[in-house]
Amino acid sequence: MSVFTFDSKTTKVTSDDIIAINNQFGVEEKDATSLDQYTSLLAVFHDACEELESMDDFIPSVDYERFPREAIHRPEEKDNKLNAWAYKVTIKDQKPKEGRRLLEGHKVAVKDCVAVAGVPMLLGTDFIKDYVPKTDATLITRLLEEGAIIKGKSVCENMCHSATSHSAATGPVQNALADGYSTGGSSSGSAALVMDPNEDVTIGISFDNGGSSRLPGAWSGAVAIKPTFGLIPCTGSASNEATNDYPGVLTQDVLTNAMGLQAIAGSDGIDDRGFNSITTPYYDDLLASDKSLKGMKIGILKEGFDSPAVEERVKESCLKAIAQFEALGAVVEEVSIPFHSKGALIWTGISKLGGYLTKTGAAIGRRGYVLHDLDEKLSEAIHDQERWEKAYPSTKNIYYNGAYATKKFPTLYSKCQNLSLKLKLAYNKALEEYDLLVLPTVPYVARSHAVVGPDAKPFDLLGKQLGLSANTCGFNQSGHPVLALPCGMLPIQEGPLANSGTKLPVSLQLVGKWWDEKTIYKAAYAWEQNNNWKEM
Amino acid sequence: MSVFTFDSKTTKVTSDDIIAINNQFGVEEKDATSLDQYTSLLAVFHDACEELESMDDFIPSVDYERFPREAIHRPEEKDNKLNAWAYKVTIKDQKPKEGRRLLEGHKVAVKDCVAVAGVPMLLGTDFIKDYVPKTDATLITRLLEEGAIIKGKSVCENMCHSATSHSAATGPVQNALADGYSTGGSSSGSAALVMDPNEDVTIGISFDNGGSSRLPGAWSGAVAIKPTFGLIPCTGSASNEATNDYPGVLTQDVLTNAMGLQAIAGSDGIDDRGFNSITTPYYDDLLASDKSLKGMKIGILKEGFDSPAVEERVKESCLKAIAQFEALGAVVEEVSIPFHSKGALIWTGISKLGGYLTKTGAAIGRRGYVLHDLDEKLSEAIHDQERWEKAYPSTKNIYYNGAYATKKFPTLYSKCQNLSLKLKLAYNKALEEYDLLVLPTVPYVARSHAVVGPDAKPFDLLGKQLGLSANTCGFNQSGHPVLALPCGMLPIQEGPLANSGTKLPVSLQLVGKWWDEKTIYKAAYAWEQNNNWKEM
Repeated sequence: MSVFTFDSKTTKVTSDDIIAINNQFGVEEKDATSLDQYTSLLAVFHDACEELESMDDFIPSVDYERFPREAIHRPEEKDNKLNAWAYKVTIKDQKPKEGRRLLEGHKVAVKDCVAVAGVPMLLGTDFIKDYVPKTDATLITRLLEEGAIIKGKSVCENMCHSATSHSAATGPVQNALADGYSTGGSSSGSAALVMDPNEDVTIGISFDNGGSSRLPGAWSGAVAIKPTFGLIPCTGSASNEATNDYPGVLTQDVLTNAMGLQAIAGSDGIDDRGFNSITTPYYDDLLASDKSLKGMKIGILKEGFDSPAVEERVKESCLKAIAQFEALGAVVEEVSIPFHSKGALIWTGISKLGGYLTKTGAAIGRRGYVLHDLDEKLSEAIHDQERWEKAYPSTKNIYYNGAYATKKFPTLYSKCQNLSLKLKLAYNKALEEYDLLVLPTVPYVARSHAVVGPDAKPFDLLGKQLGLSANTCGFNQSGHPVLALPCGMLPIQEGPLANSGTKLPVSLQLVGKWWDEKTIYKAAYAWEQNNNWKEM
Repeated sequence: MSVFTFDSKTTKVTSDDIIAINNQFGVEEKDATSLDQYTSLLAVFHDACEELESMDDFIPSVDYERFPREAIHRPEEKDNKLNAWAYKVTIKDQKPKEGRRLLEGHKVAVKDCVAVAGVPMLLGTDFIKDYVPKTDATLITRLLEEGAIIKGKSVCENMCHSATSHSAATGPVQNALADGYSTGGSSSGSAALVMDPNEDVTIGISFDNGGSSRLPGAWSGAVAIKPTFGLIPCTGSASNEATNDYPGVLTQDVLTNAMGLQAIAGSDGIDDRGFNSITTPYYDDLLASDKSLKGMKIGILKEGFDSPAVEERVKESCLKAIAQFEALGAVVEEVSIPFHSKGALIWTGISKLGGYLTKTGAAIGRRGYVLHDLDEKLSEAIHDQERWEKAYPSTKNIYYNGAYATKKFPTLYSKCQNLSLKLKLAYNKALEEYDLLVLPTVPYVARSHAVVGPDAKPFDLLGKQLGLSANTCGFNQSGHPVLALPCGMLPIQEGPLANSGTKLPVSLQLVGKWWDEKTIYKAAYAWEQNNNWKEM
């Protein structure tokens, strides 16, 4: 581990710096000469840090002539009925490529954790402020090149840290099907906009760190994909923790979903999660596929139904939907994967410890482009009482959990990563026999918004999301592709519309082999073509 | 970011834990109810951590019947003349596959940072002790399946933290060509054993985090490959920092090197650095290739020669060797990549900050199998005065640098990763025009060992490696494949054999496009077939 010189320029490092670290570790440097020399070596490193800090950050450039940003603004209330837009903008490709453009004319809302240069990123929070990215995420450029029109940034829940939709600093996002009800989170805005009959958004870009694409899909009635780990580049997105970050797509139907994925999937040569990802033309394949599922084997994941949190009527609704796969020719059997029940626990270790470290500058170990300017804002915010008071309880909880565990359980993260591998292998084993696994996305249908006054306590703010992601978050750790498919409706039993006859969607997860989104789409499309979930 | 319950079982968490974290951040939780509720949430997380700790670690199993370990022992001095063996063992495949085995009969020494189940891993250090891995690294299984015989673990420098070969706790490793001289590091043992005429080792497995494969190759006269990032799985190896870990191969000649790489390259489905790596049959392609370099364009990397540390005679030797590429038909031109000169600086930021975080449990962000039991030992060692006193100065320096920078330069890592991307793109740009870039591996030939008594101070121990990796470590950050090729000899001018007429090797780096080891091998093989570096 080479050192390049013993001579430093700085006078800012003293032996007290070494002694402070010794105290932190609980050890001592007993020899005076050694202490001096370690001080000199640290001063040399300080020089290196200062030189690195003085260098310009590397930020991928944006072609503003080709992709100009028009009418960047916060919409007025009247133009934002569901409160789902964080910012509006209009961006179109001014130098369209020749030939076919996959998303010609599609209007897209992008979750507000994905960078669009020049458009403020609110991240659903007041914890940080005044953040305006200087670059476009890879997926933004791809959407535009394929003919899509970016219409704006959709609200994401506070720092992406809530699965219900009342946490954003800009206020609750309403469910398009039932005012006053959650539309799920943290990709709440994208789900709401896609389902809103008054909007022309056909594709919502989501981001899923534990269910944040599938949960709003489920509660809103949207089709939601969380693809295979690394399939869609995360370049230019805020990260929770690198092993559970997944951009995704929310749409009203399966075909449009496959189209959206086809447009943005595949390595960008920057995000090393996806180097040489295996992609297929999801949309084209789907158009060409027959609607028969003959020969397909589908496993009903027993443990996905076993959790006491899953309402009986949700189970019934899902099983009724699954029976339709049989009607289409698939062989359907129950399969048991006991380790599924540990998925949420493993995810908790990774997402809390890793989430804390990621947000405090320790997001090490991956190649790619990082939103370094966002890192700087986050790094300052935890030391600033005014900002800290604006942090949402689930955000604070991550900081508390992570700071605690780095001291009390310092090696837990690596064990959780080994257990994630075990989890992946457990699903893989079942997927040797079955083409797909199916299980409920969410244990119950959308609930009413929490009542949140200025004096709301943490439990008031978090109470409505307990256990919500039990069936989703394990797949963030295993890395398998999952599609959440609306598969029925159930009457509201809770909140202001209880027993009003209003119904809300139930959703089924279809889990495929790594890189095999194709089979998931084929099954979902066949199901959708032969069933009307709104009537089921 | 879901929470699954508000009720905890533990009584070990109190509000003092929250207050301690508040103090660490410099903020305050002013509302008493909120403080209580965050305490409860932390207690819930504590339960999760305890449950995770109570679960069995996942450790990939070893087939001991097929791959039995025989005669595990520390060799006596008389059987370890260069002091290059850490441990001896004999492992052969007892159930050989049918058909061709690429490494039939080859004897292999494996750097002692790579796990062989049941064989103690010394890691060149007394900082940790009594570590015996319970699993085999992926590359071990692959070597055995291809017919190789594992002969033992070769000494690695102290925690892999030295580029000279006098830092291991088991004593200095001698250069096979000049007793009393360094054989480079940190893969010192593998390089020495491959070059030792009294040993029958034909393949040495190395590991390169900043030059640790190429530097010992250069000083020992071995051919050394540091392949494209992710090409060889790191599964089952000690990590410095995930973005600069590279297993490699050390051999006496190019053809055997390609054979070794062919045997162990390609994704294992576990280490996510290499998912879907692009591999080619390096050895078979090489056998089939013509020896002409007609049509090949080679760029002499100007800044690789510019550093004042590079001795004039080393430059001349390298330029003479490069002229031979022209003789073989290649077009050779000078190319300037000014940003090359920042490579060592960027690497310093990553390897010190990331190296510290990796060793303190914060190796987040990557999927794979982690030596969690090793993490536990490292995590304890920094809090144990007895162990701390055994830490080598370069190890302590990493801990000091990292602990300092996480506080003073908390977001520096992400910037260094962005700058690594910039560096990669700078090389890529040149590699659009050239098939290969060439530059000296090491600024000077091997030097005599440092005299290290029990009272040696840090500067005494580190003085002989200043600036050694200036031309190598940037490629660990850019990720490009590099082969270090012995290309001449120069007389010793320093130490006990100064002016004795004894010569030591000079080495040239051949840098290729990502995943294009094939072109590197082709050029190196053609050169080797037409030149005798020992006479140049």
